[in-house]
Amino acid sequence: MVLEVAMLMVKNELEQAFETSFRQASLLIASMPGYESHELHQCLEVPRKYLLLVKWNTLEDHTIGFRQSSIYQTWKQLLHHFYDPFPVVEHFIEVVSCKRQE
Amino acid sequence: MVLEVAMLMVKNELEQAFETSFRQASLLIASMPGYESHELHQCLEVPRKYLLLVKWNTLEDHTIGFRQSSIYQTWKQLLHHFYDPFPVVEHFIEVVSCKRQE
Repeated sequence: MVLEVAMLMVKNELEQAFETSFRQASLLIASMPGYESHELHQCLEVPRKYLLLVKWNTLEDHTIGFRQSSIYQTWKQLLHHFYDPFPVVEHFIEVVSCKRQE
Repeated sequence: MVLEVAMLMVKNELEQAFETSFRQASLLIASMPGYESHELHQCLEVPRKYLLLVKWNTLEDHTIGFRQSSIYQTWKQLLHHFYDPFPVVEHFIEVVSCKRQE
């Protein structure tokens, strides 16, 4: 499992429009082979900052399967114009995962 | 639910020592009131970069309950000397959460 991580800076006052487009775009990414889950979180300290986390089975499911797909073109059209600056996307592997004991 | 997010830059060649200390420190944070879960992920592109994600019931469970506790002093002693630069910690709230349909 690989975690795609992007810190997204959305242009001022476009937060609501971005969230609406992101919900549409969510259906696209969730349809991709190798997709496991994704989350979008909004920063309390800097409201135009969002954290995108996407779990993929493999790195290539994201970098090749998704990014080279026609669906990615629609994803871009829905979302990329909201970002300033354009985000850096990185990939992570899990080292520790722990939950509260019930 | 509030997500604490910190991008951690660990000093060169201390990755293994950091991970060992982090596993010890995990027991501390997991014992705190309001703690729900946490994850540590290592960056594939920049191996000394780690992403820490901690879920708390409320913001104050982190900023007051944890940071003002004596347990936080032990957390600091275990971990803070690994970081360069010292990390920015921010808090996020969930906007979208989606999983692959089985």
